[in-house]
Amino acid sequence: MANNDPVAIELAKMQRDISIASFFEKNRHLLGFDNPRKALLTTIKEAVDNSLDACEEADMLPEISVEVIEMSENKFKVIVEDNGPGIIKKQIPHIFARLLYGSKFFKLSQSRGQQGIGISASVMYSQLTTGKSAKITSKIGPKYPAHFYKLRIDTQKNKPEIIKEEVVEWEKDHGTKVELDLEGSYQKGDQSIDQYLKQTAIINPHVTLIYQPPKGEQLMFARATEIMPKKPREIKPHPYGVEIGKLIGMLKLTDSKTLQSFLMKEFSRVGPGTAKQVCENSFLLPNTKPRSINREMAEKLIEGIKKTKIISPPTDCISPIGEDLLEKGLRKEINAEFYCSVTRPPGVYRGNPFVIEAGIAYGGDQGSDNPIKIMRYANRVPLLYQQGSCAINKSVVNTIWRNYGLSQSRGALPVGPMTLVVHIASVWVPFTSESKEAIAHYPEIIQEIKRALQECGRKLGLYVNKKRRIKFESKKRDYIRTFIPHIGAALKDLIHISDSEEKEVENLLAVALERSRGNLEEVGVIDNPDYDEELAAIGKEKKQDDDFEGEDQENNSDKEDKQTTLEGVK
Amino acid sequence: MANNDPVAIELAKMQRDISIASFFEKNRHLLGFDNPRKALLTTIKEAVDNSLDACEEADMLPEISVEVIEMSENKFKVIVEDNGPGIIKKQIPHIFARLLYGSKFFKLSQSRGQQGIGISASVMYSQLTTGKSAKITSKIGPKYPAHFYKLRIDTQKNKPEIIKEEVVEWEKDHGTKVELDLEGSYQKGDQSIDQYLKQTAIINPHVTLIYQPPKGEQLMFARATEIMPKKPREIKPHPYGVEIGKLIGMLKLTDSKTLQSFLMKEFSRVGPGTAKQVCENSFLLPNTKPRSINREMAEKLIEGIKKTKIISPPTDCISPIGEDLLEKGLRKEINAEFYCSVTRPPGVYRGNPFVIEAGIAYGGDQGSDNPIKIMRYANRVPLLYQQGSCAINKSVVNTIWRNYGLSQSRGALPVGPMTLVVHIASVWVPFTSESKEAIAHYPEIIQEIKRALQECGRKLGLYVNKKRRIKFESKKRDYIRTFIPHIGAALKDLIHISDSEEKEVENLLAVALERSRGNLEEVGVIDNPDYDEELAAIGKEKKQDDDFEGEDQENNSDKEDKQTTLEGVK
Repeated sequence: MANNDPVAIELAKMQRDISIASFFEKNRHLLGFDNPRKALLTTIKEAVDNSLDACEEADMLPEISVEVIEMSENKFKVIVEDNGPGIIKKQIPHIFARLLYGSKFFKLSQSRGQQGIGISASVMYSQLTTGKSAKITSKIGPKYPAHFYKLRIDTQKNKPEIIKEEVVEWEKDHGTKVELDLEGSYQKGDQSIDQYLKQTAIINPHVTLIYQPPKGEQLMFARATEIMPKKPREIKPHPYGVEIGKLIGMLKLTDSKTLQSFLMKEFSRVGPGTAKQVCENSFLLPNTKPRSINREMAEKLIEGIKKTKIISPPTDCISPIGEDLLEKGLRKEINAEFYCSVTRPPGVYRGNPFVIEAGIAYGGDQGSDNPIKIMRYANRVPLLYQQGSCAINKSVVNTIWRNYGLSQSRGALPVGPMTLVVHIASVWVPFTSESKEAIAHYPEIIQEIKRALQECGRKLGLYVNKKRRIKFESKKRDYIRTFIPHIGAALKDLIHISDSEEKEVENLLAVALERSRGNLEEVGVIDNPDYDEELAAIGKEKKQDDDFEGEDQENNSDKEDKQTTLEGVK
Repeated sequence: MANNDPVAIELAKMQRDISIASFFEKNRHLLGFDNPRKALLTTIKEAVDNSLDACEEADMLPEISVEVIEMSENKFKVIVEDNGPGIIKKQIPHIFARLLYGSKFFKLSQSRGQQGIGISASVMYSQLTTGKSAKITSKIGPKYPAHFYKLRIDTQKNKPEIIKEEVVEWEKDHGTKVELDLEGSYQKGDQSIDQYLKQTAIINPHVTLIYQPPKGEQLMFARATEIMPKKPREIKPHPYGVEIGKLIGMLKLTDSKTLQSFLMKEFSRVGPGTAKQVCENSFLLPNTKPRSINREMAEKLIEGIKKTKIISPPTDCISPIGEDLLEKGLRKEINAEFYCSVTRPPGVYRGNPFVIEAGIAYGGDQGSDNPIKIMRYANRVPLLYQQGSCAINKSVVNTIWRNYGLSQSRGALPVGPMTLVVHIASVWVPFTSESKEAIAHYPEIIQEIKRALQECGRKLGLYVNKKRRIKFESKKRDYIRTFIPHIGAALKDLIHISDSEEKEVENLLAVALERSRGNLEEVGVIDNPDYDEELAAIGKEKKQDDDFEGEDQENNSDKEDKQTTLEGVK
């Protein structure tokens, strides 16, 4: 220090406000812009998610086109256009060029977006990597003009900067079009745009997606249903989920004149009776003025809420896909032998209702030597990154899939020809980062996912084991059948029967075999309600077959048969 | 819709600004407040990190006391007090009750805090879970008064709310004291406060920490050195790390009159010559006015920078611990047989310089059947959570530790009696989330960590293998020695020597053994510069010993010996 002032005075000179945009500019990996490949996907994802949300809010069947154009090495133009309700002129700059701005953050109802960051972050990334402005066109109805904007974000202030605004001609009745230039890298395969769109089509059967990749033909994912998903209703918070700090804030802001009416108005599932009960359990008068409630009283109120029995939050704020549509989506996109799905009853974490759905597509074209493929979804959005840190992955690993006929090492994903879909729908999905790639490990959520997996797993187990039984049985019969001609021939030699008599004997033996062992197709259909017993039985059957196989080996029967059996036994 | 207005008008009514405080209140798991146990640790961590940063900035040897008091079930009071420079009155409310406010975000120099979120987030969590205000006392010098504040955060506005402010008596010359009430859960073991403080003491040997846990005796981690770490110098960004969007922003804000002076003033490692070279390579005149540079010209400038050879960024902005102090810290806290450490030369990712350091403590009290223990540090702060998603973990798993005498399964941590310390020091550590628990997977960083691990690993390998050699050798001699008395006795029987002659023969044989096989201690000290050759030799030695062991088994030697050898061979 040159002078004798305390150091603190010197240090204070640097202390100042940091805009949220500057923060995320520096921390852009938090938003899914870690690398050029992911950045391209994230940008498309944010635009498509917004389009889907808007269409559904406005009850319009979504038709969304995505175009990716390679401008130069590592530079791409992305154009996403929808037929949604459009955005009013005044809001366009804020929606696209201001972080933490939107309508979904404050609502308690299921939507894809929830934070008001995504698309503005894409605009910011575009500007950072190419220096170019975002181009937005939007029209709210046939009688309204279409507005065109060129926008940038002032990152120091987190405010939109309007470069150009004008009214343009647009043949569409309504909709929004976003055009962004950005540094990116285009690749096929896992975690690609193609994958994201395909998975989006599976879980959103009411959506039509048209995709023009940088190279090659246009892809079209046509809708499988004209029925819009049930529109989620907005709800109030549930009393069990409120914390004291939040409660104090709510008491300060409310218009209600009494504590009783405050409780009824601001929370879900609180009628006059429950409100009175809460007041009683809190040792507070129902007509206490909310504003007069201090911290100590609020603490009592929290205690009172805990002591009162209040029914679970309503679940019409959530719109699950439903077992039928989930299975339909799977059938549409994955070629398998066996499909099943389940929608669990709603659960609650930190006062937020949520629903878990799971679906399985087993066998068919899918390879059987690799770990199963997991498709993770949150509020109908596919999650392609950070599978390892996701609550869904943890739940899959912790489920014992050997019970359902798959092989699995401890702490690993099961191995088999299977695709597993897991969907969490909630008014607030707790992601592990702003990029919304993985679900945080809330125990209530993990528990529900495991239950959904077990339900699907049991159905799968019945199928896999039935299939295995049929395979064994048919193998056994093949062995027996092998001997029938020999018996015929032997009898012919021994007792000198005619050729026709020999044939007849063989036919009789074949019929007897069929009669004694039952119809092959029916063999598998032992719908044993006690699954463990059935499994035990299968275990024995397998053992028996192993022995049979051993004998056969000594008899030097043809090798091909043996191999098939070994495979079956394995 | 009741009326015929477009839906967009209805939707617009809900669109609004979201304060960063509301955002993090809802997403508090992003900040490390996932659960009560972690919340308690995070709060202490944020307060201690701030204290350490302040002391170092002011060149004061830190002495920090931490007190945790259990107020009721799940409610704790945390008091953290330092002897740092203090905070000037005007800034106290902003530092503690405003998210994204601080001095470190804009500086390019190593510090623990970097975002201006941590301590305010703790204040917000405290207020949310207990409804209580934060209490802050700070004093900037002996001749200045101590200021006391009771603060809350207005989360809707992200602004401090001053509940009380007054001048108080405080015997300290200078320092800051933070007192917070919060919901928490106190546990010992991994990821505990005790662990965090212990690890902090290891990596900050110049710090004294005094800790009073809720139950039990005060703990004291006394400093091991009076020397402050080298103070990191602030640097300008390096031209290679700048992106076009950022460059355009800088060109707009600069005071420089010409492009050449802009380049020299705003970037590190750009002198007049380099600046001219950049202009030439960009086809721009050195005296171009920065404000007149448009997007296309800025693009050329970026290209020009890429084409120009510019030396790497300076590294005096980084203050690594140093090999000696790192090893000292390890010796102080871990009881082992073997220690080593390495400080790598600086690397660069996205224009940011960084240094990797690693240290190993092997053997001693540490169990040998478990995976090694990893202590991760970033800018001298221990990272206790999310090891699985951290670049350090990835680097450890991808290093082949079998080469260095540890056992390791594919894709897993090595197993052995070892603690491994890895430290990344950088002007900007890329964390995977705001809670700063794991380092993002930048390839440059992973590469450097692997190199540090390999360097340490080689030293470890020499030690482990020397130890193994000595063990084998001493085992062999023991076997040979076993026969010496028998030879003596046999000679006595055969050629009738006296008892004293028998003793003499035995002594002669022992001396011969020693002479032929060399001094035991020296056996291990074959400091072979060609490590692979040495390893190959060890491999052979091991094989030989295996054979020896086989023979021995047939000879029915005593079981205890056999087991020891097997362990050695394993």
